[in-house]
Amino acid sequence: MQEVPRFFESFEIGETRKTLARTITETDFVVHAGHSGDFFPHHMDAEFCKTQPFGARIAHGTMTFTIGIGLTATTINPHAMTYGYERLRFPKPVFIGDTIHTEIEITKAQIDPKREGYGQVVEACSVKNQNGETVLFCEHILLVKRE
Amino acid sequence: MQEVPRFFESFEIGETRKTLARTITETDFVVHAGHSGDFFPHHMDAEFCKTQPFGARIAHGTMTFTIGIGLTATTINPHAMTYGYERLRFPKPVFIGDTIHTEIEITKAQIDPKREGYGQVVEACSVKNQNGETVLFCEHILLVKRE
Amino acid sequence: MQEVPRFFESFEIGETRKTLARTITETDFVVHAGHSGDFFPHHMDAEFCKTQPFGARIAHGTMTFTIGIGLTATTINPHAMTYGYERLRFPKPVFIGDTIHTEIEITKAQIDPKREGYGQVVEACSVKNQNGETVLFCEHILLVKRE
Amino acid sequence: MQEVPRFFESFEIGETRKTLARTITETDFVVHAGHSGDFFPHHMDAEFCKTQPFGARIAHGTMTFTIGIGLTATTINPHAMTYGYERLRFPKPVFIGDTIHTEIEITKAQIDPKREGYGQVVEACSVKNQNGETVLFCEHILLVKRE
Amino acid sequence: MQEVPRFFESFEIGETRKTLARTITETDFVVHAGHSGDFFPHHMDAEFCKTQPFGARIAHGTMTFTIGIGLTATTINPHAMTYGYERLRFPKPVFIGDTIHTEIEITKAQIDPKREGYGQVVEACSVKNQNGETVLFCEHILLVKRE
Amino acid sequence: MQEVPRFFESFEIGETRKTLARTITETDFVVHAGHSGDFFPHHMDAEFCKTQPFGARIAHGTMTFTIGIGLTATTINPHAMTYGYERLRFPKPVFIGDTIHTEIEITKAQIDPKREGYGQVVEACSVKNQNGETVLFCEHILLVKRE
Repeated sequence: MQEVPRFFESFEIGETRKTLARTITETDFVVHAGHSGDFFPHHMDAEFCKTQPFGARIAHGTMTFTIGIGLTATTINPHAMTYGYERLRFPKPVFIGDTIHTEIEITKAQIDPKREGYGQVVEACSVKNQNGETVLFCEHILLVKRE
Repeated sequence: MQEVPRFFESFEIGETRKTLARTITETDFVVHAGHSGDFFPHHMDAEFCKTQPFGARIAHGTMTFTIGIGLTATTINPHAMTYGYERLRFPKPVFIGDTIHTEIEITKAQIDPKREGYGQVVEACSVKNQNGETVLFCEHILLVKRE
Repeated sequence: MQEVPRFFESFEIGETRKTLARTITETDFVVHAGHSGDFFPHHMDAEFCKTQPFGARIAHGTMTFTIGIGLTATTINPHAMTYGYERLRFPKPVFIGDTIHTEIEITKAQIDPKREGYGQVVEACSVKNQNGETVLFCEHILLVKRE
Repeated sequence: MQEVPRFFESFEIGETRKTLARTITETDFVVHAGHSGDFFPHHMDAEFCKTQPFGARIAHGTMTFTIGIGLTATTINPHAMTYGYERLRFPKPVFIGDTIHTEIEITKAQIDPKREGYGQVVEACSVKNQNGETVLFCEHILLVKRE
Repeated sequence: MQEVPRFFESFEIGETRKTLARTITETDFVVHAGHSGDFFPHHMDAEFCKTQPFGARIAHGTMTFTIGIGLTATTINPHAMTYGYERLRFPKPVFIGDTIHTEIEITKAQIDPKREGYGQVVEACSVKNQNGETVLFCEHILLVKRE
Repeated sequence: MQEVPRFFESFEIGETRKTLARTITETDFVVHAGHSGDFFPHHMDAEFCKTQPFGARIAHGTMTFTIGIGLTATTINPHAMTYGYERLRFPKPVFIGDTIHTEIEITKAQIDPKREGYGQVVEACSVKNQNGETVLFCEHILLVKRE
């Protein structure tokens, strides 16, 4: 992790980047249950899951979000902060043993009409598994200082 | 945790519920960094944070989301599944030692035009701290089977 | 988790309930060793265990107790508190990959002769695996306020 | 940890030993909640606890048992196995920051009438805090091979 | 984390870099004890430590090494691998609440006489606390491909 | 763990001991990544590792060191303290599922010329896997009080 300062003006629509990948383990499932307090059988009960459509334990949505966004935390931009997220979706389940990475594309960059000196930048984040399937999609909205 | 089956028709706009509360500890910060891989100094470096506007380490947004939503996981509705989340925002920071709970209000319930036999229910989720301040807001969209 | 107040008078002998189930993972074994400080080879050394009668690592008794009792922590009765446990036994080992749940039956309910205003309620707790075998048994003694 | 083989005949009533001590941290509380799935406010909600008789979060009984017994796991006796526990009690609460150790006294040693070649040994275990107060008591029953 | 390929020829003696910092928490102490299995009272027993020269729990040497070296893992050089470490020393203790970072200086770069096509690069690593005191020193020896 | 006081004079060159063994799990890999902050794909990305010479995720060197040395922490010698480590090497990788133990041999014991009243004792530590292969070697230098 390193600091890489960037002002609003330097973000270009269509710019992309791709993170390293990480294998999601049974340990991550257990840690996430213990961290969130959500022990629903869809995540924790292998016998129950055998009787369900997916046939196996599936990741908590909050875990795929946590790890998928965590993978993007590689360089610090001191001029940017998170405003929020939109359109968070989970198109495919994540199973134990899947390997995920995140692909980011800048899809919007506009001056913030309400916050003087700031622009809004939208990063479309696609978390993908080892087969290239998108398992999570969201729009990350950043507030970035203007130069 | 128990199963409480509810069909789409039983959700009423204006219906509310409130979860138990949980104190956010330094341990949660460290666990979340290790789980997400995000060791940004805003969450992990107390000396750096003393020089910043908030003056102290602040929670990862993904952690407030994970625990705030985790607190709502108390009863299983076998007829409902998460479709996604909208308008995820973090109006106030969460500090070590804050105690948070989640308040839920049903704000929308409409037949899903694309998915036969399903309705969409929107739960507005407000995660609040011990002073009643909202630290996270989002709209949780559920797909619920019709009777 | 929710509060469900019950006075002593409402407990009936023969009343039963059954918890959700949870798959015991290798992660739980490692977490429990690190939490308890007990790294005995019966729990942690797969090579040693191949030479032993059970042929595989077996769960710490304290873990089966912790998780088996933890599964029962779904509703809070503000009028009850734990007095203690009797007859804690481990009739069968728990292996990595077993899925356990807990069955509870009220087997005694009597006025406490020493504590005015309280009754003693005994919950017989049977932790069972996916084959219906009891892996842990104990009697949980509660002190419950009289109405 | 080392192997120290002992047959039934070598246990003497009145024999005592004392473990090292360990400070119980807020981390242990959080780990235990996540491990057991028990997030009751008595252990996890500092604001709620301020309104309760003890005034502060108190340890899960299963945690005091896990750590108190874990502290005794220092030497392996290949001729002994746990039969069960009796009279498990929690005379005083354990708070964050307390330092506990375990004192053991052999209180019974008798030939097992049902299991040929074995004796039963009872270890009375007292888990004590830094003020010498007993916070947990139980009788650990061992089956030990006869020479 | 990103890949930044560098051949042996590009390393220059006197080259330096400095990592981000991280506050060492009580949680890290507890996690490290549970991970390593080392529950020595110097790390885990606050009451005992009050009677010792340092007056407080001190970090495991293996933890300062793990976190101090972990802080340097920011960019991947596919042409380099760890050969080993020399002169690992712990000049000052690390206490709960200290904030550490790592400073690296290239102190040697020489062709490896035994491994054709490789050079040896020595990184002198100094882990420092918030007062600038060195708490760990070591020499990290890398094998790096020649161009 | 118990206290076993030994002065410098009691250490003899050629003296050996061997620890218990412990199976290294996927959980240990995940815990170590989260503890150290090192999520390099060599440890965390099973798909990437399939394309590498070893074919599978390999343990962090800092983890093998942490657990290998942790296994030796069985008895406390109040007269000894760690001075440092030399010649830390990793001759073979450690894979998920390997079972490791540590063998120690006293290879040096000499009066410390600079520290009056102390001697230096060198423990050669070999961490070995289930096939008897050395996966880590180092020299642990102790300062031990003279009688």
